[in-house]
Amino acid sequence: MTPQISIERLMASVHELGAIGARDGGGVCRLALTDADKAGRDWFVKSLHALNCEVFIDAIGNIWGIRAGRTEDAPVMIGSHIDTVATGGLYDGALGVLAGLEVIAALNASETETDLPVAVAAFTNEEGARFAPDMMGSGVHQGALDLDEMLSTRATSGDALVGEELRRIDYAGQDLPITPSAYLELHIEQGPVLETEGLKIGAVTGVQGIHWTEFTVRGQTNHAGTTPMSLRRDAGQVGFAIARLADEMAQELGEPQVATVGVFEVSPCLVNVVPDRARLTVDMRNTDGDILTSATDRLLSQAQQIAEAAECTLDIRPLARFAPVVFDDALVTRVETAAQNRQLPVKRMPSGAGHDAQMFAPNCPTAMIFVPSNKGLSHNINEHTDATDIEAGAQVLLDVVLDLTGGLK
Amino acid sequence: MTPQISIERLMASVHELGAIGARDGGGVCRLALTDADKAGRDWFVKSLHALNCEVFIDAIGNIWGIRAGRTEDAPVMIGSHIDTVATGGLYDGALGVLAGLEVIAALNASETETDLPVAVAAFTNEEGARFAPDMMGSGVHQGALDLDEMLSTRATSGDALVGEELRRIDYAGQDLPITPSAYLELHIEQGPVLETEGLKIGAVTGVQGIHWTEFTVRGQTNHAGTTPMSLRRDAGQVGFAIARLADEMAQELGEPQVATVGVFEVSPCLVNVVPDRARLTVDMRNTDGDILTSATDRLLSQAQQIAEAAECTLDIRPLARFAPVVFDDALVTRVETAAQNRQLPVKRMPSGAGHDAQMFAPNCPTAMIFVPSNKGLSHNINEHTDATDIEAGAQVLLDVVLDLTGGLK
Repeated sequence: MTPQISIERLMASVHELGAIGARDGGGVCRLALTDADKAGRDWFVKSLHALNCEVFIDAIGNIWGIRAGRTEDAPVMIGSHIDTVATGGLYDGALGVLAGLEVIAALNASETETDLPVAVAAFTNEEGARFAPDMMGSGVHQGALDLDEMLSTRATSGDALVGEELRRIDYAGQDLPITPSAYLELHIEQGPVLETEGLKIGAVTGVQGIHWTEFTVRGQTNHAGTTPMSLRRDAGQVGFAIARLADEMAQELGEPQVATVGVFEVSPCLVNVVPDRARLTVDMRNTDGDILTSATDRLLSQAQQIAEAAECTLDIRPLARFAPVVFDDALVTRVETAAQNRQLPVKRMPSGAGHDAQMFAPNCPTAMIFVPSNKGLSHNINEHTDATDIEAGAQVLLDVVLDLTGGLK
Repeated sequence: MTPQISIERLMASVHELGAIGARDGGGVCRLALTDADKAGRDWFVKSLHALNCEVFIDAIGNIWGIRAGRTEDAPVMIGSHIDTVATGGLYDGALGVLAGLEVIAALNASETETDLPVAVAAFTNEEGARFAPDMMGSGVHQGALDLDEMLSTRATSGDALVGEELRRIDYAGQDLPITPSAYLELHIEQGPVLETEGLKIGAVTGVQGIHWTEFTVRGQTNHAGTTPMSLRRDAGQVGFAIARLADEMAQELGEPQVATVGVFEVSPCLVNVVPDRARLTVDMRNTDGDILTSATDRLLSQAQQIAEAAECTLDIRPLARFAPVVFDDALVTRVETAAQNRQLPVKRMPSGAGHDAQMFAPNCPTAMIFVPSNKGLSHNINEHTDATDIEAGAQVLLDVVLDLTGGLK
């Protein structure tokens, strides 16, 4: 019997887990290592046991279950996270973990044996909403972050340490290194591309590199009426010009380059006073690290010229410089092919957001599967993906798992 | 004997009045109709009496003294104000009143008789810092503002009414209409033009028209990583483009057009979120009402196009629309000529800020004399004008008064 995704069973899981930490008025709040997160973890562990998986908990609180294969080779791992932001939806992270459970349920129901074991993982604190940095569990798991440093990380609110909270909720396990033979993650796109283009599956090629830069411009306050244009040192206008430049550069470079000016402040912020200070941030992303670096360099040097021409001073502070992550091309192609085999409209696309998968990419063949997000909404209680799209994504995940594990060979 | 300005006497007055309401750390706080304002008014009335002037107090609390002429014709009036903003300097307003006193002192000392009487006035609440609108006393005096409405105006802080405060400090007089034969006001420039151009006197041609407009842009929040440029409705970028447009239009129109974006806010104001809302103000000024109106119209219509192209909505709210005030050309020329006769570098220039003089301009020949402001600073405890520049300005004022009143004929 060919294993099949049961969308009824999968959606039942979505709603069962979604009821844990449900917010009044909709959405979910399962901030990492809170009581709600513990309840979600307990539910996940119970579900793994019910599927006859062996359950492991490591020193940073990651949970995974393994369904044995015919061999004891490294498993194919399906992972994501079940922590959420404070006003999260039902799908961000949870869907990847639940689709993993569903893959195992489908293998069990069809009594399918695989050569390689299959693991399903939920990683600690992917969101970074309560403890920084984000992708903490997968980062420690794959050696990108230091365990002891992470255990002594204090909550942004100041109320607790990661290590204390892990012990409190009884999820402080032991060091358990594991390198899977491959890593797969199903996730909602969290963006509008698939929906806009009428596609059902994104074969994710990697994660964009991210450069965050803060610009602080200082000029001179002046009376808006008595100061001719030629005698001004208008920090606001320098800021506006840098903001426009970032946008124009991204438009000019074309996809996948993006640039966002999310923060902009002027002071003194009065109608009839020329501002003496402006502060803005530019978030630039690209899958091509060289293009991204050269775009950032160009922005910084042109911003400096704009400030100098206006006789303003400019402080430039790099807030983040993350290189792009490239997923395994052969594995991305397997995802793409699996979608095509099911007549699902698919495209190769980068991820604009960070995911646990990027921590695995340097160490084992890694790929992700995106399904559409309604209106591109995420980190929002109205986050939604149609059940038929979830079914398609989970089926592609199952197909690739069977392909990789030698199931049905 | 030819009347002469005594700069020693004038600077002694500047420091005597400046001591009333002096702030710890420098500068002056004589907010309208406070105890400090009353003390300043008492000092002014005492000074007028000492110069043998007849003193009048009208229903809105304006104070003027009249030095009799050979005729009983309408006087030449010299006016300004002695109220200040909360962190005011020694010169804004006060200099015009004190220079008027000094003109009378010089006429007295030289025993000069004039055909026309000379009046020196201090108008109530020019600053508008405690009660809105500003230029209240001169506005009521010249019939542009309604007396009863102004008397029942509540302080911005809510603590008192104009009428109550006038009675409390004993400056509620009676309705005393007066139309001078001409109105003159010496004032610090409050801007950097004279200092920058090495000039000593500004022959003020009028007050710029002022258009204040608030723009509120609404788009859609989106994830900075997952939303391609083409699928954004970025309210921030629409705001930046409008802000740049205002500046570019002013640069392109050339002097005296100015445009200032003083207020700019985005929300949610997060590094990695495309803003769904931006609010900005544009302050545009020009001495030519037609050019100003057409510039504002063009800004509004192009702003609308920018918003539409970005699929954002735009709310436009006019906050202020004041037509330019044009001073009497012949009187401006007399100021210019008086400066030239004393080899003082002079230029005709508009005022970027509002002054009591603009209330007189529709009703009698009116002009103003500007003297340089150090670094263009005003409404600032470091406001400063050199004594030699004050002397030059007061001398020009005296020369024009003699010219107009038939003194020394």
